[in-house]
Amino acid sequence: MERVTVAVPSRTYDVTVASGILDEAGAHLPELAGVERAFVVADTNVAERYLEPLGRGLAERGWARVHLVVPEGEDAKTLPMATVLHRQLATQEAHRDDLVVALGGGSVGDLAGFVAATYMRGVPFLQVPTTLTAQVDAAVGGKTAVNLPEGKNLVGAFHQPVAVLADVATLSTLGDRQYGSGLAEVAKYALTLDVELLEMLERDPAAVLERRPPVLEPLVARCIRAKAAVVGEDERDAGRRLVLNYGHTLGHALERLDSFAGRSHGEAISIGMTFAARLAEELGIATSGLAARHARLFTALGLNALGSLPPADEVLAAMRMDKKYRGGMRFVLLEDVGRPIVVDPIDEDPLRRILEQMRTREWSGR
Amino acid sequence: MERVTVAVPSRTYDVTVASGILDEAGAHLPELAGVERAFVVADTNVAERYLEPLGRGLAERGWARVHLVVPEGEDAKTLPMATVLHRQLATQEAHRDDLVVALGGGSVGDLAGFVAATYMRGVPFLQVPTTLTAQVDAAVGGKTAVNLPEGKNLVGAFHQPVAVLADVATLSTLGDRQYGSGLAEVAKYALTLDVELLEMLERDPAAVLERRPPVLEPLVARCIRAKAAVVGEDERDAGRRLVLNYGHTLGHALERLDSFAGRSHGEAISIGMTFAARLAEELGIATSGLAARHARLFTALGLNALGSLPPADEVLAAMRMDKKYRGGMRFVLLEDVGRPIVVDPIDEDPLRRILEQMRTREWSGR
Repeated sequence: MERVTVAVPSRTYDVTVASGILDEAGAHLPELAGVERAFVVADTNVAERYLEPLGRGLAERGWARVHLVVPEGEDAKTLPMATVLHRQLATQEAHRDDLVVALGGGSVGDLAGFVAATYMRGVPFLQVPTTLTAQVDAAVGGKTAVNLPEGKNLVGAFHQPVAVLADVATLSTLGDRQYGSGLAEVAKYALTLDVELLEMLERDPAAVLERRPPVLEPLVARCIRAKAAVVGEDERDAGRRLVLNYGHTLGHALERLDSFAGRSHGEAISIGMTFAARLAEELGIATSGLAARHARLFTALGLNALGSLPPADEVLAAMRMDKKYRGGMRFVLLEDVGRPIVVDPIDEDPLRRILEQMRTREWSGR
Repeated sequence: MERVTVAVPSRTYDVTVASGILDEAGAHLPELAGVERAFVVADTNVAERYLEPLGRGLAERGWARVHLVVPEGEDAKTLPMATVLHRQLATQEAHRDDLVVALGGGSVGDLAGFVAATYMRGVPFLQVPTTLTAQVDAAVGGKTAVNLPEGKNLVGAFHQPVAVLADVATLSTLGDRQYGSGLAEVAKYALTLDVELLEMLERDPAAVLERRPPVLEPLVARCIRAKAAVVGEDERDAGRRLVLNYGHTLGHALERLDSFAGRSHGEAISIGMTFAARLAEELGIATSGLAARHARLFTALGLNALGSLPPADEVLAAMRMDKKYRGGMRFVLLEDVGRPIVVDPIDEDPLRRILEQMRTREWSGR
């Protein structure tokens, strides 16, 4: 078992990373005065597997449990769905000390977190992430959000959880594609903030792909530690936290281009990170070889970081829609692994050139 | 012109109280980096009168203005209406440094404030309150909210404005009923926190009823100063801020009872404060005479603090639904004017007895 303390101005809380702890959840939570009921929001998929053991774990604390099941996936992250949850809380007279629990992947965490942030202007919130992406990234840091038809995560709030329980045993049942998306986020932490982790991944990628708890526990904990350090410096996303967007400017743009809806988030940001490394080389910020090192890592982790790309102009247009875009493109680039900087504004010419090189395989990872 | 600085942990901002300053609004706002457009949310009633002068005032700063008009009154404070505004911001590509402005009464401030708190997890927000209630109470303190069918203000967020502009000239066009509701809030500050203001009101109530700017400016500023002191100690409503609920436990219960829908908010809380004073006398917390002093003040301000009451059991049932109710009734009571305390829990027996005394006019304000 590993424990990481996250300290942000608005709250200090613990993330517990361990295997098979859902049914002892109560023992890993802080003192919470006034909780009478725990409202557990879970998606249909996760509900069947984990509501029952988590329920036993919360029952230890003497709290009544109410289950609120929502549809699976990103499509449930809407304001109408949040309103359904708000109204369920109100109908059942949830009060402001009651606990809202998110059990599931990043979408459930974002949705339930937004509801917890806004019901009665904020009630206590517990994250129990069951995907690798949510454990290493989404569940820590206090960002909550729902989507609008106009774009992802456009409505949200900052609301820190009272605790996070990351049970790595839940990762064994993920599909490869979903697990791979998490690995891409792991690689992001390794490349930007934790060179020791990077070297572990490069030395023995197979160990990570086997998903054994003794390997996963320290892996997840390292990522959370890296994120906690960043979030602690920049709770409200004003500067340093930008680092966590490494690879995401292009990644999000690719996800936005409908014709590529088949690409996983992990692949999209793997391409994005590789692209950013090429850009750093091209701008003379990094020495040659950084992008090839990216490509090798992603390949070893089973991620296709050289997937096919749409025409450069389409990609650039989609990148301009990024909510961090303001008057000029802004990128997180690496001077070397472990040394991220923010570069702003960046000319579109080199962006276009590298996109074309990657699209036509003029550059192919060597 | 008066200026009050509100300092809460999350922000420090100024409230400017003056007459006829809408068209010089830009000059009274702080430096705001990155604003390109101001999205002004106004209700249909206020829009016609004040959008144009306020637009001129904001134009001084070089910001483009976008007008978002919403229906008047409490009925517009819903999640679907908030979603309409979120989507209008998204469609027009409002970015996270753009300014959302609330122009109108408390409902518009709550609604636009909630939208500003949650669009992109929070964008800068300016309050331009045009009712007395909103100027002395709703616009300062950072509480935003919308209603659910299940209850008022059940969904919301804390989001402090970057500034508040209270133009007392706008109060001249309010109906007597709406102005009276504001006077009840003024009386609340006077009774709980500002005995000097109380003595001014008692000495010359007519001056306040005439609504002359030279009288209103210091009056509004005093209330805001009192509120700012409380909010500065307790931004997130954990303790001290309860004082601001003086009279509101019974007041809200009366508003909730449909058969009394005709009662104004001001009358409801005037009855609530008078009731609380009777309760303080009954419990030996205050000396006899406090309730009569309340009743005299409200009568002088044109507020009916002895209006007819529903049967005590109905009122008690409605009071139990208060979101501050937990296991027992909690009341803000006065040891004397200017000396509020929180008493918790309170037995229902004296509550029932006093409600019956007031309902049957066994006690009638003397």
